[in-house]
Amino acid sequence: MKRFFYPRSVAVVGVSERADNLGRNIVNNLLEFGFSGDIFPVGPKGGRVHNLDIFPLLEDLPYVPDLVAVLAPARVVPSVLDACGQMGVQRVVVESGGFSELGAEGQRLEEEVRQRLRQYGIRMMGPNGLGAINLEIGLCLPFMNLPHKPRLGGVSLLCQSGGVGTNVIAWLAQAGLGMNKFVSLGNKLDVNENDLLEFLLEDPGTKLIYLYMEDLADGRRLMELGRRANKPILLHKANIGELSADIARSHTASLAVDDDVVTAACCQAGILRVHSRNEFLQAAIALQQPPLRGNRLVVLSRSGGEAVVTADACHKAGFKLPPLSPEIVHLIESRSRAGVIKPINPLDLGDIFDFSLYADVAAAFCQDPDVDGIILNYGPINDLEREAARAMARNLIETARRHEKPLLITVIGNLEEREYFRHELGVPVFAFPGEAIRALALARRFHTCQLPLTPVAPPEVPSLGAVGSLLAPYLATVGPVPMPVALEAMNTLGIAVPPRRLAQTAEEAEAAAQELGLPLCLKLVAPSALHKSDLGGVLLNLNTTAAVRQGFAAIAQVARTNLPKGEPWQVLAMPFIEKGMEVIIGAKRDRVFGPMILFGAGGIWVEVLEDVAMRLAPLDQAAALELIHETKIAKILRGFRGQGPSDLQALAQCLVLLSAFMLEFPQVQEVDLNPVRVFPEGQGCLALDARIIMGEAATATVTTG
Amino acid sequence: MKRFFYPRSVAVVGVSERADNLGRNIVNNLLEFGFSGDIFPVGPKGGRVHNLDIFPLLEDLPYVPDLVAVLAPARVVPSVLDACGQMGVQRVVVESGGFSELGAEGQRLEEEVRQRLRQYGIRMMGPNGLGAINLEIGLCLPFMNLPHKPRLGGVSLLCQSGGVGTNVIAWLAQAGLGMNKFVSLGNKLDVNENDLLEFLLEDPGTKLIYLYMEDLADGRRLMELGRRANKPILLHKANIGELSADIARSHTASLAVDDDVVTAACCQAGILRVHSRNEFLQAAIALQQPPLRGNRLVVLSRSGGEAVVTADACHKAGFKLPPLSPEIVHLIESRSRAGVIKPINPLDLGDIFDFSLYADVAAAFCQDPDVDGIILNYGPINDLEREAARAMARNLIETARRHEKPLLITVIGNLEEREYFRHELGVPVFAFPGEAIRALALARRFHTCQLPLTPVAPPEVPSLGAVGSLLAPYLATVGPVPMPVALEAMNTLGIAVPPRRLAQTAEEAEAAAQELGLPLCLKLVAPSALHKSDLGGVLLNLNTTAAVRQGFAAIAQVARTNLPKGEPWQVLAMPFIEKGMEVIIGAKRDRVFGPMILFGAGGIWVEVLEDVAMRLAPLDQAAALELIHETKIAKILRGFRGQGPSDLQALAQCLVLLSAFMLEFPQVQEVDLNPVRVFPEGQGCLALDARIIMGEAATATVTTG
Repeated sequence: MKRFFYPRSVAVVGVSERADNLGRNIVNNLLEFGFSGDIFPVGPKGGRVHNLDIFPLLEDLPYVPDLVAVLAPARVVPSVLDACGQMGVQRVVVESGGFSELGAEGQRLEEEVRQRLRQYGIRMMGPNGLGAINLEIGLCLPFMNLPHKPRLGGVSLLCQSGGVGTNVIAWLAQAGLGMNKFVSLGNKLDVNENDLLEFLLEDPGTKLIYLYMEDLADGRRLMELGRRANKPILLHKANIGELSADIARSHTASLAVDDDVVTAACCQAGILRVHSRNEFLQAAIALQQPPLRGNRLVVLSRSGGEAVVTADACHKAGFKLPPLSPEIVHLIESRSRAGVIKPINPLDLGDIFDFSLYADVAAAFCQDPDVDGIILNYGPINDLEREAARAMARNLIETARRHEKPLLITVIGNLEEREYFRHELGVPVFAFPGEAIRALALARRFHTCQLPLTPVAPPEVPSLGAVGSLLAPYLATVGPVPMPVALEAMNTLGIAVPPRRLAQTAEEAEAAAQELGLPLCLKLVAPSALHKSDLGGVLLNLNTTAAVRQGFAAIAQVARTNLPKGEPWQVLAMPFIEKGMEVIIGAKRDRVFGPMILFGAGGIWVEVLEDVAMRLAPLDQAAALELIHETKIAKILRGFRGQGPSDLQALAQCLVLLSAFMLEFPQVQEVDLNPVRVFPEGQGCLALDARIIMGEAATATVTTG
Repeated sequence: MKRFFYPRSVAVVGVSERADNLGRNIVNNLLEFGFSGDIFPVGPKGGRVHNLDIFPLLEDLPYVPDLVAVLAPARVVPSVLDACGQMGVQRVVVESGGFSELGAEGQRLEEEVRQRLRQYGIRMMGPNGLGAINLEIGLCLPFMNLPHKPRLGGVSLLCQSGGVGTNVIAWLAQAGLGMNKFVSLGNKLDVNENDLLEFLLEDPGTKLIYLYMEDLADGRRLMELGRRANKPILLHKANIGELSADIARSHTASLAVDDDVVTAACCQAGILRVHSRNEFLQAAIALQQPPLRGNRLVVLSRSGGEAVVTADACHKAGFKLPPLSPEIVHLIESRSRAGVIKPINPLDLGDIFDFSLYADVAAAFCQDPDVDGIILNYGPINDLEREAARAMARNLIETARRHEKPLLITVIGNLEEREYFRHELGVPVFAFPGEAIRALALARRFHTCQLPLTPVAPPEVPSLGAVGSLLAPYLATVGPVPMPVALEAMNTLGIAVPPRRLAQTAEEAEAAAQELGLPLCLKLVAPSALHKSDLGGVLLNLNTTAAVRQGFAAIAQVARTNLPKGEPWQVLAMPFIEKGMEVIIGAKRDRVFGPMILFGAGGIWVEVLEDVAMRLAPLDQAAALELIHETKIAKILRGFRGQGPSDLQALAQCLVLLSAFMLEFPQVQEVDLNPVRVFPEGQGCLALDARIIMGEAATATVTTG
């Protein structure tokens, strides 16, 4: 990737003398950003642009350029690649649109491009993106004006959309944040975000990475990169709902990913998920501060109201505001008139016009080992005190830097002062305390999270072989496996299910009652009876043999009325189990991230409470227990109000087995065990129902990361 | 109140020639803001300031001023009020701090001030606030520089904190929003937010009101004002958690209010609750647009990425993006090359450089009755097209105004253009689509909510007399009423409870079993046994007479071990009831808002799920049903997955009765019925436990609003 960002020469294909030619803008940007290497405009009509000759053909160039940027019509891109390949060009950026985002014809064109890349060994960014910027050497390939140029700094951006990307660049400049590298990826036909991320993680100039993505190339690789990153990665994954599905497909040929899976994956891999560019910008400001090593803040304010608002924000974000130390209380009391300043945290110094007290208090905070970060609300109340106030603030900033403590500032009622701090002093200034605190909360997540650097190793599950034999007839099918087979498969895997009998007549149902004991429940089993209980195909708590016989007749009636004519059906008999808490255990295979396991409140509560947590497979026992504890229902399962704890180890074991099952059988799309009943500690759990849905074998390679 | 905002003359008490005198700033602000009436600086040392004579005494003034602003030390404020009163001044603004926010001595001073106000019939703003601004006549009383002066417009601000207030003023100016009136209320010793709100609701210049409050004066009056408002009221209630409690008290002598109650009250009264100044600013921009009459938006974007981000924001905010009408599809297809523009919503016109198409499409959207609002993402890609792009945007804006449809704009990657639109064209411009959509969602709440304009009338409850007799011995006590009495009181009120017997011996417990039938449950009753089940004082599902006898013995042991020596105790026997869904019904009396009723998931689920909704009393049957339907558990209660509906009418009736109970007995602080079991439709519900806590009689007058 380095050769994309540090070329010594760039050819721009698609340049003409016309005023509205977009290729000209690329040449202009290279010149304006101060690219020091050779720039070769190329265009069939020749001429001159920005004092440079336009070469009619790539072949006319004096030597082989390190990088070629292409902004020619989509249909000629394959032949441009031919020219590049034949010359020996190895890095190409294609900015032209008109490929798979426009449908079938564009897809054919992309196939031609892919073929050229393979043939010549070319790596390509795009198509349908703005290409790369590297402020370190003045490389700037976008074809639009960039009216706001950020200073050189540590933030690198990977944006699938060019429009979103240029907007972020403008806002970086506005926020006083420094930029290092930028790529607008477009359709990601060859180079994708993971390739670039891998490079940026090792890039010395890059201190923080922002990704705006409308789809994701390979979730497992992204997670692996996240796990080994030692700089913050902020992921803004857009295209989260059905409203954006069509436009994302037509914009960057992006498909949707299950948003909850993205959230779970980020959480597991230590990637900070942000939901807007504003959230990213604020977080980037906070992340450039010394690390926040704990959760204890002090608030030093010139306005009582801002102190209240800041305390509210701390409350929402879960920060602590510990009492001031006796030394600091003494300092304040010795320097203010009796009773005017309450020595509490947040500390309102609004009635103090002696700025040296601010400086002395802040210095004391910096030295206090029980203070992890400092929030200052500040603003001059008139022009006379401006200089003294600025000097005070400069002093605070230096003190905090020396002590390596984060100091975040909100400037009250004076926007010029805010600009001064931001642009002149380069300090983290926020418009409102809420923004500062939310940003600091994200920084806290980065600085304090303790992720396992090695991924979980999947445990050995000897039963998988037997499960495979059992499921063999269904592995090549699509759709649900018959319910009795699904239950048997789970039982074989090691997830306990109740004893059960199949009945095709009322007599067989009665015999099942004899064997299994009463009360009994009966369930209709038939290929088209997926929603058994909605049909009336499930009867619970049948207490007598007569009730079992009548129950069978009732289900037979349901089958006759509701099933397609001639469809075979049976009735499954199981003991009716009333005890235990109802939970749900499930698994899904995500297109991008592969298999994930979910756990939550079960039975009728699933859809009502939506109390479900999820993790990507594989899970070991410890990870499975963590997953359980992420739900609300875990509070009850741990033992609550006189009820003893439930058998969490048994539940966790089920999750581990299901995870191994999903990794072993890529044909399985989805598993639902709902409800699973969990009993008191040591007494295990029972899956009362099981659904296994087969799909096409997933093409993504599932690693164990 | 009008006389505070439209004085013809203002005296400023506390002015001197010293450069650091803060009273000077008031005089300066009056001059700078263009106050056209007489300004009289007053200060004991006399002299001149800003070319005006300083009068040594108020009595020296040539005539009685309409308004006196005071910024003298707190201790002299009573004597200033004497001087005002004796002259006949009727409106005073006290900006000095040093009153109840500083503790006992300040409270005594406030009592002296109160006495003067009564004696002379003076109305006063403050103390400890910045006073008022009225841009209509250039009145400006704050004692600090206001470097950012907003233009005259329709937004009026009521801010308890001066620091927060001046910051909001600066941001109004920055956002291009016009301001009308402003008050920094401070300690609200006399004039409070409700007095001012009542005035502003009738004030023709005020179109929208923002309140920043750290406490609330009278919740019921606020709600009544909210109900009759025909302009948006945005309430930013700060001081929401324990972290801000101390600082709010020392800043504006504010006490905390239960934040959930504030939320419920705002919702009932049609007041828009905002949680930050940024949220207010964005909402104010959207609320100045023509009303959003429905939920269907169209997105017109110059960037596909911004279109995706906008669609995501619409998804989160619950907006719909309906398909484009056939006419608009036809228009787009007739004007663009085949396949380049997908005629979908969001509509990405990024590849169109013919701006007349934007204008024509927007005009068609304006005329489309199925479109309620329009979002435009737009930005010029180079300087050449700036003028054409601006003309296009102006055209769109005019078209939308003519058709009275809200049009919100985000400008891509070009901050100067954003400023141009905001300040030159005065149109609603947002930095990011997320902010625009969230603001529009708040506007939707204002424009589409259908509140009952007349408050609920409390129903007649004939049983209240008998309940009163029963509770008479406890009405003057503080703390919990004995559990058997609480159950009896609820039963008398009309909320069904199970039959029950009290037992003091094992034999009496056995006799209770005979009468009530098995299975039985036993509960320890004693003044200090509030958390019965934690102690082991509750035994459920006793199936045999022997079990009842053993159970009594076990509870007796608990009583002997856990209760203070000599405390009397009994055992309450009740049938053990297993059927029905568990819910909680409760009531609390809030210091500011008075009695409120709550409903939610019951039993062990209360604390785990926190699925509780609340409303302020009184409730009628319809309001009670609405309250029930606000919870998640309502989904189950309405009938779910083969289970029939529960008896919602019976539950609602309980809520109505409890509401009447809370209004009748102001001594009651809190009622908890947990669990209440609700049975299938027509079969009623039963409160299995009841707690009534008595407190001091609430001083707030509880109206029926």
